[in-house]
Amino acid sequence: MAKVTFQFENGTPVEAAAVSGENLLELARNYNIAIDAPCSGNGSCGKCRVKLLSGELDSQKTLHISQEEYDGGWRLACISKVVGDVTVMVPDIASAYKNRMKVADLSSGEEVAIFDRTVEDLKQAGIDFTNDFSLLTVPMDPPTLDDTMPDNERLIWALKRETGEEEIVLTFQVLQNLAQVLRDSDFRVKCVLTREGSTLKVMNVLPADQDVKVTGLAIDIGTTTVSGILVDLLTGEILAKASAGNGQIRYGADVINRIIESARPGGRKRLQKAIIEETLNPMIGEMCKSSKIPVSWIYRLCIASNTTMNHLLLGVYSDPVRMEPYIPSFFYSHAVKASDLGLFAAADAKIIIAPNIGSYVGGDITAGTLSSCIWNKEEFSLFIDLGTNGELVFGNSDFLMSCACSAGPAFEGGDISCGMRATDGAIEACTIDKETMEPTFRIVGDEGQKPVGLCGSGIIDVISELFRCGIINAKGIFVREGERIRHNVHGMGSYVLAYQKDAASVKDIEITEVDIDNFIRAKGAIFSAINIMVSSLDFDVSMIDHIYVAGGIGSGINMKNAVMIGMFPDVELEKFHYIGNSSLSGAYTILLSNQAEEKVHEIGTGMTYMELSTNPQYMDEFVAACFLPHTNAGLFPTVQAELEG
Amino acid sequence: MAKVTFQFENGTPVEAAAVSGENLLELARNYNIAIDAPCSGNGSCGKCRVKLLSGELDSQKTLHISQEEYDGGWRLACISKVVGDVTVMVPDIASAYKNRMKVADLSSGEEVAIFDRTVEDLKQAGIDFTNDFSLLTVPMDPPTLDDTMPDNERLIWALKRETGEEEIVLTFQVLQNLAQVLRDSDFRVKCVLTREGSTLKVMNVLPADQDVKVTGLAIDIGTTTVSGILVDLLTGEILAKASAGNGQIRYGADVINRIIESARPGGRKRLQKAIIEETLNPMIGEMCKSSKIPVSWIYRLCIASNTTMNHLLLGVYSDPVRMEPYIPSFFYSHAVKASDLGLFAAADAKIIIAPNIGSYVGGDITAGTLSSCIWNKEEFSLFIDLGTNGELVFGNSDFLMSCACSAGPAFEGGDISCGMRATDGAIEACTIDKETMEPTFRIVGDEGQKPVGLCGSGIIDVISELFRCGIINAKGIFVREGERIRHNVHGMGSYVLAYQKDAASVKDIEITEVDIDNFIRAKGAIFSAINIMVSSLDFDVSMIDHIYVAGGIGSGINMKNAVMIGMFPDVELEKFHYIGNSSLSGAYTILLSNQAEEKVHEIGTGMTYMELSTNPQYMDEFVAACFLPHTNAGLFPTVQAELEG
Repeated sequence: MAKVTFQFENGTPVEAAAVSGENLLELARNYNIAIDAPCSGNGSCGKCRVKLLSGELDSQKTLHISQEEYDGGWRLACISKVVGDVTVMVPDIASAYKNRMKVADLSSGEEVAIFDRTVEDLKQAGIDFTNDFSLLTVPMDPPTLDDTMPDNERLIWALKRETGEEEIVLTFQVLQNLAQVLRDSDFRVKCVLTREGSTLKVMNVLPADQDVKVTGLAIDIGTTTVSGILVDLLTGEILAKASAGNGQIRYGADVINRIIESARPGGRKRLQKAIIEETLNPMIGEMCKSSKIPVSWIYRLCIASNTTMNHLLLGVYSDPVRMEPYIPSFFYSHAVKASDLGLFAAADAKIIIAPNIGSYVGGDITAGTLSSCIWNKEEFSLFIDLGTNGELVFGNSDFLMSCACSAGPAFEGGDISCGMRATDGAIEACTIDKETMEPTFRIVGDEGQKPVGLCGSGIIDVISELFRCGIINAKGIFVREGERIRHNVHGMGSYVLAYQKDAASVKDIEITEVDIDNFIRAKGAIFSAINIMVSSLDFDVSMIDHIYVAGGIGSGINMKNAVMIGMFPDVELEKFHYIGNSSLSGAYTILLSNQAEEKVHEIGTGMTYMELSTNPQYMDEFVAACFLPHTNAGLFPTVQAELEG
Repeated sequence: MAKVTFQFENGTPVEAAAVSGENLLELARNYNIAIDAPCSGNGSCGKCRVKLLSGELDSQKTLHISQEEYDGGWRLACISKVVGDVTVMVPDIASAYKNRMKVADLSSGEEVAIFDRTVEDLKQAGIDFTNDFSLLTVPMDPPTLDDTMPDNERLIWALKRETGEEEIVLTFQVLQNLAQVLRDSDFRVKCVLTREGSTLKVMNVLPADQDVKVTGLAIDIGTTTVSGILVDLLTGEILAKASAGNGQIRYGADVINRIIESARPGGRKRLQKAIIEETLNPMIGEMCKSSKIPVSWIYRLCIASNTTMNHLLLGVYSDPVRMEPYIPSFFYSHAVKASDLGLFAAADAKIIIAPNIGSYVGGDITAGTLSSCIWNKEEFSLFIDLGTNGELVFGNSDFLMSCACSAGPAFEGGDISCGMRATDGAIEACTIDKETMEPTFRIVGDEGQKPVGLCGSGIIDVISELFRCGIINAKGIFVREGERIRHNVHGMGSYVLAYQKDAASVKDIEITEVDIDNFIRAKGAIFSAINIMVSSLDFDVSMIDHIYVAGGIGSGINMKNAVMIGMFPDVELEKFHYIGNSSLSGAYTILLSNQAEEKVHEIGTGMTYMELSTNPQYMDEFVAACFLPHTNAGLFPTVQAELEG
């Protein structure tokens, strides 16, 4: 047995017992230590770096670690074996990308404005914002020796009198505490009511003089990032917001690796635990704490997520999702309650899963399409959701067509050596001086925040600026020299954005040719998908009236730069609209509005799915798009003009 | 800190850490050690005996422990304090009375005959034995790239085709495993179906070629004893039977002490854990094991129990049940599923609680009344359930009146120094030779089984025989001398039934004047309740056509002897019928028959409850009945004749 000590930049070290030859990444997973492994440990992504502090590891060499770094002790955990007692440092850059949870009380701000605008748009599209929840004060006569009706019948009788309803039921949890609440409140209570079919359902009973809120949760479960908001179901007010990395990431960065892991013995439970106990419940707990709401006051949840994420959340066997003919277990399931999943909420809280339409277009897209309102316009709109998978919806009030492409996690900072989510310390925007090649950037967080890494919108800017300044060529290869330009022993170039001394990072923040190549593939996947889908309908991109860009890439996204690198089609910039996390705003509207819930099903049922992976054109288009901006420069006239001008 | 070692006649010792002065019974409870404490630790019952093996305890003296026993190391745990390291032995006699679980495969035998007869009687009373469960084989076409319907819709579509039903839902648990089952079975499955309102509900999906049973559980939760049977819902066959002591007994022998305990901090959880995790789940697990049925194949449960027991089972706040005006939280609750309680069964299995009609007449009585069929006869019947509480129902097809009296646990062997349940080693019948005063007895169990203690039917026989032989007088005082008759220092008499050398016990099996007094109070409570209820309706006992005796007292009950001691009215012996555990047989019929479920509600709604505790006559009647057979000998003419003859 060897003793492996994991140290962290912040936090208590963890000691683990390993057998000789044990894989370091697997050991870390067993001890629940967060080390990034987007490729799930096959050595290809280079993210699972650790630094030797004492002792030795039996590590393979890799292009991801330069000789200089290797000499400094850097190793990839996934290709390292334990050979004796050893101490390693797990860098925080990993956890910044992974798990840092952010919670905020919200009553204003940019994000709230997005939700407000979404509600406004949907109202104009004829969606009524009413739901089945209400709060009713019910006085009762206390029992006597001559009036010994049991408590549940007494309450139901009083409710029938107050509401005129015929069928009224109490949840089991209400029954458990009813006697005490009635007696503590002198038989004057407030009831939280909802409806199930023709039945009025009592979700909670509280003393009449207590301040009470009726709340629900809207949650977007992305493959990489999870976001949620706690919502007052009666007013629509957003009481708190939280986001965190999806705890499943240590089992793979993409849906395929997670499905494979879930099919291993105990895998479904492990992945469910990672999303529920390690991600959602801590987020819900923090939101409730910050807004002083007991978790038992959460009476309804709406979850928008891709097909794999909602299958894994529910613990549903999902192997067929990844194998031809790609069959999900469900598009929609009515039957799930919070207690089935062990989610922090009233046990009887119903979980609405935004409907999937196929194995690769899920509830995040139907919810996002709902909130984009493209289904209500005569003009033609393109909806682009930039997640770990990129999904597109094109159409108008007459038709909707969708497709999906595998972009990888680059838009959320994955697959990029200094990548991170758009949280504190992320470089979200960047310009580079063409002469001096010195960068200027905007960083997420408070004044004085030092840079930690690059989020998606920052990467677009950096690549676009490097290209505009002629520092990299159309293939993403460094072609100028300078102080900030480096080349490793293999001749691979990189650009230093921030030196370690100026950064909150254990090493210089730089973008490498490997990063740029990864990002070009991601943007190439998106652009070629757009091109194929639009042209297969005999449209060309100039006929698109609106482009709605959604996703966790960050509100800092510079559309001009995105066009410059050939990620989006070269259309008038005013056609672009960044609509934030449309999956979450869609979930929010479904939570609040019965009509929105009906509409999202209508959208799901009506949407056509176009399979790109079996489309013979797609690979050619993709290869052509893996270029800055594109091998067919004629598709990007304004970019060409700018580069020439 | 002191170290307390608990030793057992069988089993591994348990070491407990105690602070000086800590109460030994409370310490044992904290360590989950089963020590009987029917009086919940107030020193009155004398059951919580332990024997000092080394070290000392600070113990109060008590009449329950003779000087000789005290010198031998016997102490009562409830009045002993830890003062240093100590080793005590916890006698098995306690666990024989408490927790010994008995499981049997059943396909014939006396008990099965009782269930069969009950079903026959109910059928003759017009009750149809059909329920909503069925098993259906469903073939499906596997999905292809051109037919990508998700699995749940594919199954529902096939079921609609096979059944013609409109509304079909799958449970969440079915959805979780559906993809795997469909593919393991080449899309040929068997579905376990039930109905909820107008909806057909799929409770399980299994490969078509698998041998499958559709099962349910009928459970009787008594205050002292719990019994259950595993039933084939399609055929009615009883697959296994189990009984065990109610694990809650360490929190008090009667419902009042348990309610008090449940209202203490954490009490509801503790009592729920004792009945669910420590009693029911082990029983269910053993029944499933013995009949090779997975617990997930249990799709429905019917539980018959008194009002307090079903409140505590559900974790419902129940303090008002014991306090004027004695209000239960519910008579009936529709909302409970197995997963709400963590019971071993399909998560979605519905739990039917036989309806209560008041705080002191519960579902055990409505279920028992159902199975007795007294509601279907023109003749007048008296139904007597001898449990820890005694409950009576009197009436016919026109009316039903009920009352309850607190008999204590004597009928199940509690409150009797050598008492035990009617399991292996229990003396269930006894005769005594009038000349020699030597006893002869019948013991529950295999040939050669040595006696362990006395069960209810045995106690009736012993007291009746002692009285008939003139060994005790009408007050239960020993009035003859002999080898088997002893007197302690206080002059209190006892009769040795079996010497320790002939018994499977740590001491002689004897019945004391205290035991006899306890039993006389129990039988007095029953007889006076009968007398008051019948006479309040202007009946007299001779007008009763049938007396149905139910309860765990054992099938060995000798009605003649029960009349002899004045427990039952002096009517023709052929009017008596022992109907076994009618609460369990009632639960069994409710499980199998929708009409029986409707009928038990009808019975519950139509039954009148007569409160004895506020009846001014009751105390007088009770005092008069605490005599062998009764102070008014004229009520027992045949007994008088026998004693005189």
